[in-house]
Amino acid sequence: MKDLTKITEYKELYKATLLDNVMPFWLENSIDQEFGGYFSCLDRDGTVYDTDKFMWLQNRELWMFSRMYNTVEAKEEWKEAATVGYEFLKKHGMDAYGNWYFSLNREGKPLVQPYNIFSDCFAAIGFKEYAVMTGDEEALAIAKRTFENILKRQANPKGSYNKIVDGTRPLKNFALPMILSNMALLFEGVLEDEKVNELVDQVVDEVMNVFLDEEKGIVYENVLPDGSKADCYDGRLLNPGHGIEAMWFIMDIAAKKSDSALMQKAVDVVISTLEYSWDKEFGGIFYFMDAEGRPPLQLEWDQKLWWVHLETLIALSKGFLHTEDQRCWDWYEKVHNYAWSHFHDPEFGEWFGYLNRRGEAYQSLKGSKWKGCYHVPRAMMECWQIFEKIEEKNLQLQ
Amino acid sequence: MKDLTKITEYKELYKATLLDNVMPFWLENSIDQEFGGYFSCLDRDGTVYDTDKFMWLQNRELWMFSRMYNTVEAKEEWKEAATVGYEFLKKHGMDAYGNWYFSLNREGKPLVQPYNIFSDCFAAIGFKEYAVMTGDEEALAIAKRTFENILKRQANPKGSYNKIVDGTRPLKNFALPMILSNMALLFEGVLEDEKVNELVDQVVDEVMNVFLDEEKGIVYENVLPDGSKADCYDGRLLNPGHGIEAMWFIMDIAAKKSDSALMQKAVDVVISTLEYSWDKEFGGIFYFMDAEGRPPLQLEWDQKLWWVHLETLIALSKGFLHTEDQRCWDWYEKVHNYAWSHFHDPEFGEWFGYLNRRGEAYQSLKGSKWKGCYHVPRAMMECWQIFEKIEEKNLQLQ
Repeated sequence: MKDLTKITEYKELYKATLLDNVMPFWLENSIDQEFGGYFSCLDRDGTVYDTDKFMWLQNRELWMFSRMYNTVEAKEEWKEAATVGYEFLKKHGMDAYGNWYFSLNREGKPLVQPYNIFSDCFAAIGFKEYAVMTGDEEALAIAKRTFENILKRQANPKGSYNKIVDGTRPLKNFALPMILSNMALLFEGVLEDEKVNELVDQVVDEVMNVFLDEEKGIVYENVLPDGSKADCYDGRLLNPGHGIEAMWFIMDIAAKKSDSALMQKAVDVVISTLEYSWDKEFGGIFYFMDAEGRPPLQLEWDQKLWWVHLETLIALSKGFLHTEDQRCWDWYEKVHNYAWSHFHDPEFGEWFGYLNRRGEAYQSLKGSKWKGCYHVPRAMMECWQIFEKIEEKNLQLQ
Repeated sequence: MKDLTKITEYKELYKATLLDNVMPFWLENSIDQEFGGYFSCLDRDGTVYDTDKFMWLQNRELWMFSRMYNTVEAKEEWKEAATVGYEFLKKHGMDAYGNWYFSLNREGKPLVQPYNIFSDCFAAIGFKEYAVMTGDEEALAIAKRTFENILKRQANPKGSYNKIVDGTRPLKNFALPMILSNMALLFEGVLEDEKVNELVDQVVDEVMNVFLDEEKGIVYENVLPDGSKADCYDGRLLNPGHGIEAMWFIMDIAAKKSDSALMQKAVDVVISTLEYSWDKEFGGIFYFMDAEGRPPLQLEWDQKLWWVHLETLIALSKGFLHTEDQRCWDWYEKVHNYAWSHFHDPEFGEWFGYLNRRGEAYQSLKGSKWKGCYHVPRAMMECWQIFEKIEEKNLQLQ
């Protein structure tokens, strides 16, 4: 049994940070009352420094406000904030075929074509969550259509924007199966059960049998169709945060299926990935690595990113909740101490996004083209709920 | 008059580094005798760590060996090394329309489609230089055809791979006019004089009147068609190394045209760019900056890159040669001291490519997908020749 005081303290920390710090930061600074949608490019104190609207972040913020309303508390201000995004996105976010643009300008005119299937992924979950909150049938129809569109585009997600020559080296990328493993569960109750189960089995197989390297216990970003490795930059690429994030999606699936072997395997992968990717010199988890230890292509490979550490906190606390594996607890404390002392901004709220290898926040931003109202609040919400469950479990043991 | 000892010392340093260190490094490690072409991915000691063949770097290396033969010494080993690249590239580098692929695997099978016009730019100069060395008519024909193809594709270089939606924000990018300002002179004697002059006037106008911000004295990476600024990530983007490199291309044009006003303007831009982009805390020139001082999008913005510093050494020494502007000399010494003490690898030769903000070589590589046999030897060759001319000028003054 763990020290209950600490567990309760963690629970309270996540809850208070979510409700009193992170959600207010986005609510106060990111809503575009004039044109609709959200400002995601916020500087340290919340000042808007760019007004373009990126579909990943717009739809993630729509999801976040709706999810808070649906699972935490039916607060009117969260519903209103979600609606400001929803109306803008419904009107401007898609092309004539229902494909989601990558970005729009502030007014909603399209800037970048729908080349990126993850815009559609986040739209599908955002619109679905909004439909749950409001009962809006149009939102639900768009969510469903977008989801079906994604499944249709799976085999060639970039379509005509794909620059890879057919045949020479047919690498498959991990990101889509990973997101689908999360989306499948988020779409429960919307899709037929049979369809959800089928998709879940497919993505679990892809993630655990194709992209996971059994021997290393690490997920690869790109593999050949049969799961074998390609000796090239992309083929050697590891993104530890991606692998760890996928493992908590797998844990959710394992919990739903009461599959304790799958649960333990996901925990093992989190631990082996952390052992591999933890920076022994300065602390923190590397952003990118080369599986053969060769020079990574990404110039930012040694940086420490907020989402990597937050996803790891979710994976470790969730793993501990389900397995009580001592390694989860030990690593949790290590990552917690690093993350809260380096990313958290006690002065202006929210978290810094990008640290250099030494752990210095060399970027002041709280939001950008890639960071928005998503990973920080989602992790605060997840960890709050997880520690609540760990607390309950421990209280029963007393 | 400058201290002649120092000028001679610099001249000898560049000459010796080029001939005894840099060219041997590539000659010994980068030639693929089995399949032809070059290995550009070399680790610190020259070990090959990836065998893919990227057209930028293949053609740049072809250019470098040919150029050395044509302008330094008719060494047989340089000619042979160029020929190994030439034969491979002629056979595998282009699609059926004569567009250059972005990359091939080691054997020469295409990996990435011809979406990137700079592959064609470097192919044109590589094949032209090879034709000068050998008198090979096929090489010359390919060089000419590729060059004409570039001019045809100028308005929409990415073709069907262009992801920008027409009309919303029609940004123009600086890279192509910049490369063309260099290529125009490299193609003298191949294209008709009239065509060269016309192209030169066009690119000088583009660079100095459209992309250069008159007030700041800094070149922007992207502007609207009329030269006005767009308030977005791309519109605020500065790449100081690009701007400085372009200025020595402009200096070459100014020297050819005996245009001393253009020469002085190019020098002024180099100085104002350096004043803007020099890292006052740790030294070195930042890789990317935001013109409004907002958070840059590029996670590697604060890194110090080899080519940025080498291009600056060329621009400053060339500017000093032509104008004797004291600021060129003062900045030259500052950048020289930083660059030679941080990038130069006294143990294994060649230069490191990537330093973090503090000036630490956090990547061991000597070559990669983006660094090859080009910027280091080209700068050594240019600076050697420039200091030789400065030396001659000073000797006449004595």
